[in-house]
Amino acid sequence: MSENTLPSVNDLTLEEKASLTSGGDAWHLQGVEDKGIPGYMITDGPHGLRKSLAVETGSTDLNDSVPATCFPPAAGLASSWNPELIHQVGQAMAEECIQEKVAVILGPGVNIKRNPLGGRCFEYWSEDPYLAGHTAVGIVSGVQSKGVGTSLKHFAVNNQETDRLRISANVSQRALREIYFPAFEHIVKTAQPWTIMCAYNQINGVHASQNHWLLTEVLRDEWGFEGIVMSDWGAAHDRVASLNAGLNLEMPPSFTDDQIVYAAREGRIDPEQLDRMAQGMVELANKSRAAMSIEGYRFDVDAHHEVARQAAVESMVLLKNDDAILPLDPTANIAVIGEFARTPRYQGGGSSHITPTKMTSFLDTLAERAVAANFAPGFTLDLDEQDPALVAEAVETAKGADVALMFLGLPEAAESEGFDRTTLDIPAKQVALLEAVAAENPNVVVVLSNGSVVSVHPWANNAKGILESWLLGQAGGGALADVIFGEASPSGKLAQSVPMDINDDPSMLNWPGEEGHVDYGEGVFVGYRYYDTYGKEVDYPFGFGLSYATFELSDAAVSKTGANTASVTVTVTNTSDVDAAETVQVYVAPGKAEVARPKHELKGFKKVFLKAGESATVTIELDERAFAYWSERFNDWHVEAGEYTVEIGTSSRDIAAKGVVTLDGDGKALPLNEWSTFGEWRSDPVGAPIVEAMHAKGESGELVKLPDSDMMTMFLESMPINSMTTLLGASGKEITAFLLDEYAKVTKLSDR
Amino acid sequence: MSENTLPSVNDLTLEEKASLTSGGDAWHLQGVEDKGIPGYMITDGPHGLRKSLAVETGSTDLNDSVPATCFPPAAGLASSWNPELIHQVGQAMAEECIQEKVAVILGPGVNIKRNPLGGRCFEYWSEDPYLAGHTAVGIVSGVQSKGVGTSLKHFAVNNQETDRLRISANVSQRALREIYFPAFEHIVKTAQPWTIMCAYNQINGVHASQNHWLLTEVLRDEWGFEGIVMSDWGAAHDRVASLNAGLNLEMPPSFTDDQIVYAAREGRIDPEQLDRMAQGMVELANKSRAAMSIEGYRFDVDAHHEVARQAAVESMVLLKNDDAILPLDPTANIAVIGEFARTPRYQGGGSSHITPTKMTSFLDTLAERAVAANFAPGFTLDLDEQDPALVAEAVETAKGADVALMFLGLPEAAESEGFDRTTLDIPAKQVALLEAVAAENPNVVVVLSNGSVVSVHPWANNAKGILESWLLGQAGGGALADVIFGEASPSGKLAQSVPMDINDDPSMLNWPGEEGHVDYGEGVFVGYRYYDTYGKEVDYPFGFGLSYATFELSDAAVSKTGANTASVTVTVTNTSDVDAAETVQVYVAPGKAEVARPKHELKGFKKVFLKAGESATVTIELDERAFAYWSERFNDWHVEAGEYTVEIGTSSRDIAAKGVVTLDGDGKALPLNEWSTFGEWRSDPVGAPIVEAMHAKGESGELVKLPDSDMMTMFLESMPINSMTTLLGASGKEITAFLLDEYAKVTKLSDR
Repeated sequence: MSENTLPSVNDLTLEEKASLTSGGDAWHLQGVEDKGIPGYMITDGPHGLRKSLAVETGSTDLNDSVPATCFPPAAGLASSWNPELIHQVGQAMAEECIQEKVAVILGPGVNIKRNPLGGRCFEYWSEDPYLAGHTAVGIVSGVQSKGVGTSLKHFAVNNQETDRLRISANVSQRALREIYFPAFEHIVKTAQPWTIMCAYNQINGVHASQNHWLLTEVLRDEWGFEGIVMSDWGAAHDRVASLNAGLNLEMPPSFTDDQIVYAAREGRIDPEQLDRMAQGMVELANKSRAAMSIEGYRFDVDAHHEVARQAAVESMVLLKNDDAILPLDPTANIAVIGEFARTPRYQGGGSSHITPTKMTSFLDTLAERAVAANFAPGFTLDLDEQDPALVAEAVETAKGADVALMFLGLPEAAESEGFDRTTLDIPAKQVALLEAVAAENPNVVVVLSNGSVVSVHPWANNAKGILESWLLGQAGGGALADVIFGEASPSGKLAQSVPMDINDDPSMLNWPGEEGHVDYGEGVFVGYRYYDTYGKEVDYPFGFGLSYATFELSDAAVSKTGANTASVTVTVTNTSDVDAAETVQVYVAPGKAEVARPKHELKGFKKVFLKAGESATVTIELDERAFAYWSERFNDWHVEAGEYTVEIGTSSRDIAAKGVVTLDGDGKALPLNEWSTFGEWRSDPVGAPIVEAMHAKGESGELVKLPDSDMMTMFLESMPINSMTTLLGASGKEITAFLLDEYAKVTKLSDR
Repeated sequence: MSENTLPSVNDLTLEEKASLTSGGDAWHLQGVEDKGIPGYMITDGPHGLRKSLAVETGSTDLNDSVPATCFPPAAGLASSWNPELIHQVGQAMAEECIQEKVAVILGPGVNIKRNPLGGRCFEYWSEDPYLAGHTAVGIVSGVQSKGVGTSLKHFAVNNQETDRLRISANVSQRALREIYFPAFEHIVKTAQPWTIMCAYNQINGVHASQNHWLLTEVLRDEWGFEGIVMSDWGAAHDRVASLNAGLNLEMPPSFTDDQIVYAAREGRIDPEQLDRMAQGMVELANKSRAAMSIEGYRFDVDAHHEVARQAAVESMVLLKNDDAILPLDPTANIAVIGEFARTPRYQGGGSSHITPTKMTSFLDTLAERAVAANFAPGFTLDLDEQDPALVAEAVETAKGADVALMFLGLPEAAESEGFDRTTLDIPAKQVALLEAVAAENPNVVVVLSNGSVVSVHPWANNAKGILESWLLGQAGGGALADVIFGEASPSGKLAQSVPMDINDDPSMLNWPGEEGHVDYGEGVFVGYRYYDTYGKEVDYPFGFGLSYATFELSDAAVSKTGANTASVTVTVTNTSDVDAAETVQVYVAPGKAEVARPKHELKGFKKVFLKAGESATVTIELDERAFAYWSERFNDWHVEAGEYTVEIGTSSRDIAAKGVVTLDGDGKALPLNEWSTFGEWRSDPVGAPIVEAMHAKGESGELVKLPDSDMMTMFLESMPINSMTTLLGASGKEITAFLLDEYAKVTKLSDR
C-alpha cells in the first residue's frame, strides 16, 4: 500500500474497528494485516527501552528485557533543568526503538510529586507542574523527532501507588488545573505526543479510563490533543464506557472485542465515536510506518552511553559543600565507603526497569582512571541488621584518610512502582555508619543514591558535603567521578523540596487516603507552594543546587509587554575560574487576590553554561497564563488586575532581584444578583451608583433607611441583598427590589 | 384552655399552620391567640439574656437590651471542664428568662473551633467535640430544668464568619460525624434541647436551612430529636424548601406565609410535613406555657452575680507560673498595668452582647478590698499607634514594684460575630509595652483578656506568669482578684490548643475559603488531633492548665467491661497544702486502623475538687463510641477489633498512666467482590481458603498458575481480581470466575 493510499477506518468492518481498540497482546497493537495495518510493538520506558521478553519467552518477570541504554530516571533528568539535553535523551531512545522495531515508547510520566513518599516519584519529574512540563517535553519532542511515538502518562492524578487501581483522587477543579494538569497540557499543546496513557485511578469518583470530561472535553476539545489514549495496563474495566469516554486502546487486551460489536449494534456506542477511536489507531499505525520500515538499524551503544553520562552529570544536585570539600583531589588519600560505590543503584523498580547495555560502578571508574582509594562496603543493601564488622572495617578505612566519601541511599527494596514509601529516612544502619565514620574523620562527603527525596535532616551535620545523585542510569559511575573530581561542575537544581520532616508536608493529612478515596485537602499548596507560602523551614528549597563556580545576577529588568504579559531580562556572570552552568529561575508572586494563591510560582527558567568569567543575558517571556489562576466561578483561567511581583533568582528562596508589573487583568466579572452582598454591590462599577441612589432614597424617605451603626454596616457588608428582611422586616424587600430593578435597567441598556 | 385540652395542629386552618412557621416579629414566635397559642418571646443568649429592645423601641442597635447577668462566654465556661457549674449558669439564665417572659434563650453554640481565627470562637466551646458536648450540655439541662427552652446552634458547620450566609462548607462525612456533629448529637440525645437553630452556611452545597439530610434524616431520624428547628436570623431563603427539609420556623419573618399556603395547595409541600412542622411550633408553645405563666418573678441579681463569679474563677487557665510568682501577696508592692484592669473586656461582640446587671473591674475590686496598687493604663483600647507617654508612665510604675501585673489582650474591635480575625497576635503596642516593662522589672505576670486563643509565643519569655482569663463576664474583677491573690486556685484547662504560629494549623490551607466554598481539607485532624498526631510543637497543649496545688494520679486501671467497652479508674491526690481542683482526662489511642485516626482523642473527663492532702477515686466509663470511627464504606460507626491504648492524664500531652484493652470489634465486614484485591481476598476468612484452592488448581494445571516473582506477588496484593487479564491474558478470566463462583457458593450456604 503506497503512502497515497494509507488505510483509514472507512476501509474496515465493524469487527475490525472493534479489534483495533485493544492490543494484539500485552506489548503489541492489534493489526489488520490484510488492510495494511501492522500490529506494531509498544514498550515501556520512560528512561530507556524496556522491550519485554515476556511475549517471546512467556516470562512474567518484568525485568526480562533486551539490553538498552539506561538513562537517568526522571527525578534526575528533571534536576538538570535542561530541556535540550533531555531532547537528546529522547532522540537516543528513539534510535533504540527503531533498532528494536518499537513504535511507541511508554513515557514520560509527568504526574506531580504530591507527596515525596509516592512510590513512583523516581520516575516522575517534579513537585512543580511548570518544571515537569518544560523538562519532560524534551523526551516527547526528542523521541518523536525520529518518527517514534511517546505515551505521556499517567493521565491524570496518579500520584500514589496505594490502592492505585481503585482509589478516587478527589481534587478541586482549581488544583487539577493549576497543579495536576499543566505538565500534560503544556506537552500536548507544544509537542503533541502520539499517545497518552490514562491513569489507573479514579478522579473525583470516575475512573480515568472512563472519564469523558478528562479524555474528551479537556484533553481533546480544550487542549487539541490529536493522538490516541491508551489505558494503563489493566486500567480499563468497561470497554464500552471507555470508548464512549474517549479511550482508544485497551492494554493489554481483555479479549472482549465482541462486546464492542454488540454494543455498537445495540446503539450503546455511537458509531461515529467508535470510528473516531479506531481511526486514531489507524493513524497511529500510519505515523509509525516510516520508522518501523527501517531495516537493520543499529544504534550507537557508546554514543548513547555518553548521552546517558552527560545526563547523569547534569542530574546531580550539590546540596552542601562546606569548606569547599568538593571537588576532591584524585591524588588525595580517599576512603570510599558504602556498598553503593560498588553496587550502584541506578534505576527504580517496576515497569521502568531496564537491562542496561553496560554498567560501570564508581569503583570501576576509579580503577579505570587509576585513582587509588580504599574501599569498605560499610553495609549490605538488604534490610538485615547492621553487621558490626562492616562498621569496624569502614571506620578503620576512614581513619587517617583525607576524606571519607560515603555512598549512602535507598536500597532497591525501599522504592518501586507498586508501593509507596513509609518513611523519608535512609536505613538506620547507614546513618549509624555515617555517625561512626564522622566521629573518626570529620571530612565526610555523602553521595546519595535515591529515586525520590530522602531526609537529610537527621544526619546532615555529620557531613561537610552532600551530593544528591538520584538514580543516575548506567553511566553514573563515570559521571560521579567527573563531578567528584571536578572535571565537571555540578549544575543540577532541586525539582523537589527537601523537607525537614515528612510530617511538614501538608499532603500527609490525606495520605494515602482511606476507604477508596484520597482527598487532596492541600489544594494547590503542593511542595514549595506550601513551604514558601506558609513560611515553613525546609532543609533545601525547590530550585536549590550549588556549583563549584560562583555566579552573579545583574541588570535584572521586568517590563510589561502587553495587557497581561511581561518580559524578564537578566545578566548572569560566572564570577569564578571554573566553567559551569547556572539556572535562572523566574517566579511570579501575585499581589492581593480573590483566592488564596501561593506566595510565588515558577513561571520560567533558563540554564546557561558559562565559561569562567563569561556573561550572558537571558530573556524569559511571561505569558498571560503565568499570572493566572483557575477560577471555579468562571470555570476558566482568570488574571486579576493589579500588581504582580516578578522574582528572579536561583532557587525559590534565593531571589536576587524583583520587579513589579501592574497588569490590566482580563476583565472577567460576575454579574450582580440577589445573592451578591452589599459589599459586592458597593465595589462593583455598576452596582456602586445604584447603592448610592438607594441611600439617597433612604434619606428622602422613599425607601426605608438602612441602619448605620458600625456593627450593622459590618453585617451588611457580607449580607446578600436578598436577606434584607432580616434587618428591616417587610420593608427590606423594597430595597432588594430597588437594587435589582435598577441593575436590570442599566445592564439591559449596556447590552444594546 | 386547660392543660387537658392543649392546642394541637388539628385545631388550625392551613393559613394558621403556615403562620406558625415564621416569627411574629424579629424576637417573637407567631401566636394564634384565639386557638390558645401565644406568641412567646425568644431572645439571644448564649451567656446571658439579650432581651432586645429593638421591637419595643425600634432600635436597630444590637446592644440595646434589658440588663441581665453576663456570665463568662463559652470559651471561658468550656475551660472550666465543669458541667455541673455550667448547669447552674443555665438555671440562673432560665430564671432571668422567666422574669423577662422569654420562652427560649438562643444558645448554646457548640460549633467546633476549627480555626482559632474564627470570629465567634469566643462563644463556641472547644476544638474538641467531646468536650464541647459534655460541657455545653449543662446550659441546655440547666435552662430547661426551669421550663425555659434553649436553642442549640448553629447546626451545623458554622465555623467562620467570612461569607457565612453563602459559603459551602465542604466536609467529608467522616469529619462531619467525628468532629462537627458529636457535640450536637450528644446534647440532643441526652438533653433534648427544645429548639435547634440551623446555620447560615451551606454544607456540601446545600444550605443548612434546606438540608433534609441534616434536619430530618440525621437530626430526627437518627438522633431522635423531638424539638423544633428554627433558622438563624436570615438563614432561610426558600420557606417551602426549608419546610420540606425539616425547618419548622423562619426567623425573623419574611412575610411570605401566603407562599406556604399556595405551595400546600399546589402539592409542593406535603400536607403531613406542614402539619409536623406546625405541630412542633404548637408543642413549643405548650412546653413554654408553665414558665411563661409565672407572674411577677424577680431573679436574685446578687446570687446570679455570684454564679457568674464562680464560673469566672473556674474559667481561668494558668499557663505559666515560673518561680510560683502567683498567687500574689496583696500586701506586696504591685504595679497594675494595662487598660483592661480598669476597662475590662468581659464579653464578645454581636448577637451575644449583653447589658450586665453590674460590672466590677479589677481595679474596682482592689479598691473594694483595700489592696494598694499603682496603676498605669499603658495603652489605649483603640487601634491607634502607641502613645510613648503611656509607655513611660507604665515603665515608671513598674520600676521598683515587687511585681508588674499586666492586663493585656484583644480589644473589642479585634473579635466579634461578623468577621474573622486575621492574626493570632495581640496588638503590637501591647507587646512592646510588655517588653519595656519586663526590661525594667523581671517579675511580670500577664493576665490575658481575649475570647479566642491568642499567640503567646512572641512574648512569653517576658513573663514569669501567664493567666489566660478569656472573657470573664460581669463578675470577672472579683474572680480575678480571688485567683491572683490565692483565695481560689486556678483550675481551668485549655479547651483549645495554643499554637506557636497560626500557620501551624492545618485548616489554614483552606481558610476562609474562596469562590463560595471552603474545603475542610484537614478532615478529622482539627486542633490537638493534628498537633499530637503529626508531632508538632505547640505552646500549650489541649487540656493543659496549672494549679496552685500539686496532684498525683495513682492506681490507674483500665478494664474491659464488654466486647467493645471499658472502664477507667484512677486515684487523684492533692499532694499540696492548697485546696484546688484537678481534671482527669481520658484519651483513647487506637492501634493500627484501616483509616488514618488521630493519635488519641478525648473520650472522658472528670473534674475533682480536693482539699489539701485529700484523695478521690474517679471512674470513667468508655462506651463503644469511644473507640469507633465513622466509616464511609459502612456509612456507620465502626469499631475495629484489636488493641486500644487508654491514656489517663491531665492534658493531651501529660499522660500519667496508660492501659491497653483488646476489643472484639463490632464484626462489620464488607463482602468480597470482583473489585476486591487479592490481598483482601487472602485476608478475609471466607476468601482465604478460596485463594488457597485457586493456588492448588494452579499447581495441578486446572487453572493458570499465578506468577510468583516478588514483584508480581506485590502487584497482585493490591490488584482487584477483575484485573487478571492484565497479567495472564484471557486465561486470567478463569481465575476471576473461579474466585467469584466459589465465594458465591460459600456465602449462599451461610445465608441459609
